[in-house]
Amino acid sequence: MKARDVFAVNIRCTRLKLGYSQERLAEVTNLHRTYIGSVERGERNVTIDVMEKISLALKIPLTKLLDKDYSNENE
Amino acid sequence: MKARDVFAVNIRCTRLKLGYSQERLAEVTNLHRTYIGSVERGERNVTIDVMEKISLALKIPLTKLLDKDYSNENE
Repeated sequence: MKARDVFAVNIRCTRLKLGYSQERLAEVTNLHRTYIGSVERGERNVTIDVMEKISLALKIPLTKLLDKDYSNENE
Repeated sequence: MKARDVFAVNIRCTRLKLGYSQERLAEVTNLHRTYIGSVERGERNVTIDVMEKISLALKIPLTKLLDKDYSNENE
């Protein structure tokens, strides 16, 4: 599984657990909703600054968002 | 400390511990030596695909390369 796919799944799961819509995450991060959608589908080669922005918005360390076992941990 | 600075310090330290020159890391990753230099100075907003490439070349998981305590761990 590629890093961008791990990141994609983890941010989608975390966002859903927090009860955030893509719109809400977009608002908090100052990114576009459709951009968030494409990141969550692993379509974007996101930059480290954007990743950090998303991690701050979700209040989850970037190390966790890149950990392939993270989403399962708290099922 | 910003994520890109944590990444910068960790890849420089790991590279030096492995005894790799910037040239060698550049060769293995198919990136330019001056690009590696600027990443190691935290000047680049690197993408997740490049980060993954570097992590594979250094044989260190991306989660470690983004962990601010990583470089100190194995002093």
